[in-house]
Amino acid sequence: MRIDRTALTDLAQGAAFLGSGGGGDPYYSLLLGQAELARVESFELVPLDSLGDDALVVPCGWIGAPTVSVEKLPSGLEALAGLKRLERELGRPIDAVLPIEIGGGNGLAPLVSAARLGVPVVDADGMGRAFPESQMAIFNIRGLSACPSVLTAACGALTVIETDDNLTHERIARGLSVALGGIAHMVEYPLTGREAKDHAIGGSVSAAIAIGAAVRRAREGGDDPFAALYAALRDTSLYPYAGELFDGKIVDLERETQGGFSVGRVVIEGFGGSGRMELVFQNENLIARRDGDVVAMVPDLITVMDRETADSITTERLKYGQRVKIVGAAAPAMLREARALALVGPGAFGFTDAYRPIEALNGWDQG
Amino acid sequence: MRIDRTALTDLAQGAAFLGSGGGGDPYYSLLLGQAELARVESFELVPLDSLGDDALVVPCGWIGAPTVSVEKLPSGLEALAGLKRLERELGRPIDAVLPIEIGGGNGLAPLVSAARLGVPVVDADGMGRAFPESQMAIFNIRGLSACPSVLTAACGALTVIETDDNLTHERIARGLSVALGGIAHMVEYPLTGREAKDHAIGGSVSAAIAIGAAVRRAREGGDDPFAALYAALRDTSLYPYAGELFDGKIVDLERETQGGFSVGRVVIEGFGGSGRMELVFQNENLIARRDGDVVAMVPDLITVMDRETADSITTERLKYGQRVKIVGAAAPAMLREARALALVGPGAFGFTDAYRPIEALNGWDQG
Repeated sequence: MRIDRTALTDLAQGAAFLGSGGGGDPYYSLLLGQAELARVESFELVPLDSLGDDALVVPCGWIGAPTVSVEKLPSGLEALAGLKRLERELGRPIDAVLPIEIGGGNGLAPLVSAARLGVPVVDADGMGRAFPESQMAIFNIRGLSACPSVLTAACGALTVIETDDNLTHERIARGLSVALGGIAHMVEYPLTGREAKDHAIGGSVSAAIAIGAAVRRAREGGDDPFAALYAALRDTSLYPYAGELFDGKIVDLERETQGGFSVGRVVIEGFGGSGRMELVFQNENLIARRDGDVVAMVPDLITVMDRETADSITTERLKYGQRVKIVGAAAPAMLREARALALVGPGAFGFTDAYRPIEALNGWDQG
Repeated sequence: MRIDRTALTDLAQGAAFLGSGGGGDPYYSLLLGQAELARVESFELVPLDSLGDDALVVPCGWIGAPTVSVEKLPSGLEALAGLKRLERELGRPIDAVLPIEIGGGNGLAPLVSAARLGVPVVDADGMGRAFPESQMAIFNIRGLSACPSVLTAACGALTVIETDDNLTHERIARGLSVALGGIAHMVEYPLTGREAKDHAIGGSVSAAIAIGAAVRRAREGGDDPFAALYAALRDTSLYPYAGELFDGKIVDLERETQGGFSVGRVVIEGFGGSGRMELVFQNENLIARRDGDVVAMVPDLITVMDRETADSITTERLKYGQRVKIVGAAAPAMLREARALALVGPGAFGFTDAYRPIEALNGWDQG
């Protein structure tokens, strides 16, 4: 599949939704992608099963606080410098690149990196959404090593990281991203083609494009973009349940950049006094409570969307007074396995609530 | 010259003094050195002028807060892992090692690292004392690059750092040391033999040994160890003035571990109410004020010593009630050049006082 200008825009729309509030605002990644399309005709997207077992397949993306990413622009050289350094490190060329997370700007950014390196992007990612910490990738959940990884910053600084422990790797990378101004690019979890096929979340890039396309077509045809979004999500094999969790206006917002993350909470009041919803976030929206009751929790997706345009609003773009719909979707099945929930479920973020699937919490599975 | 068990103990004593309160307590480095002397007969120390112009000469030492170093023990594998990785990085063997700073434990630690690698230690260092930040090395003052550098931690994590900017390098390394628990080993400023000869502070290792030996002999002979220390310092070509700045008891101490440093202040009250001295420190003692008047300032050396034993007390070992002498010494001339003072003078640490040499402030240059 080739990703042209229209598909790129659709991908930005779909990835923004799948970010669950995080992964970084896709706007700059979209602009960079559009600029790159003046150089190449389209981006090449290949399915997981096209990879040779011994191919070198490399996830990459940005690490840091999204609040910083919208103010501190990249140099544009970070990704290629990191990929080239990893090739030198491993003594062989990279065969394909994939997004470490499909959510937000990180779902798009690898297109340009891959085009510059002259390799395709794989239709897969490492999170099926976005998560704030690098050890939350499916590759860590499945026991693969993040290293060697290469972190690069806008100032030209580059570091190669080697450690057996993926949590230590996250701590190192987070410390580096803070020291380097709050945002950095990371090439991590180098995979064989076999490992990618066995563990990556396949089909997520094309799913994001399909989701974005459905919203675009609904808008163009004067149809309800939210209905189109829910239908498109259910049509993917990845996100089988989706629907509206709340509709209202943002009346309270706390957000700070802390320890390399954007953390906070946002309160939405229903129109006509019809209840309140509270979301807690660490880069991504983690838990949604309606009038005190949990209605969605990680790893399920919770996205704040403009109630008129159905544009997703990442956590760093939340503002008092925005009129929004809160939309939820079931996480890919791979993220709901027990070993996954230990690393990306509510407990991993300090919540004491046991995980319950969004479709059960909202009766979506009742037919 | 060979460094045997006696010379090693003398080096520990001398390096502790030259640390100006920092560089880490030499106790663990001394123990590790003694343990290594069960394996090798002695350590080899070679003069700067024995280096070939194209030799690869590598400074190394520990980075972090000394307060942490006395609680979090090294694995013992850090230095060799870092040196080996730098060899791989540069594609050639290392010919010799030197201490990045002669002060404190960092003045001794490279002996073991060099012995493990099978190369000699050069009789020189990068600071002529100890400083809290890596860009304060003479190699940065003289315009050389810190990179590639290799940082290793007790947990086995390793990072290679590449940046053209030595201040960014310090920020990265500091962020890493914090992320890795507060202390890490660093191999940095790889030098050619020519660069080492042109810019390293030559003779500092043998000077530290001579200073330590003088104190030991005075103790053994029942003589005043302080008089012996001052005479030994003046006998080196590096520290031409030395003397007592104050004598008293520690009556106030503030110290915290902040941003990867041990920072604080200590107040010493003279016996019989004869005035007060205040020292401000960031790992190292930076400025000494007697009854409000500055009597010594960086880069000149300010060391707190036990007034009975003449043992140096590093800043992390300061305690309320210790009876101490505050001893000062003139910094090596290379640290007093204008380009050096910009990076290691009082202004570099936020003090507004212009630098004045310790011998002028105390009338030691009046004959």
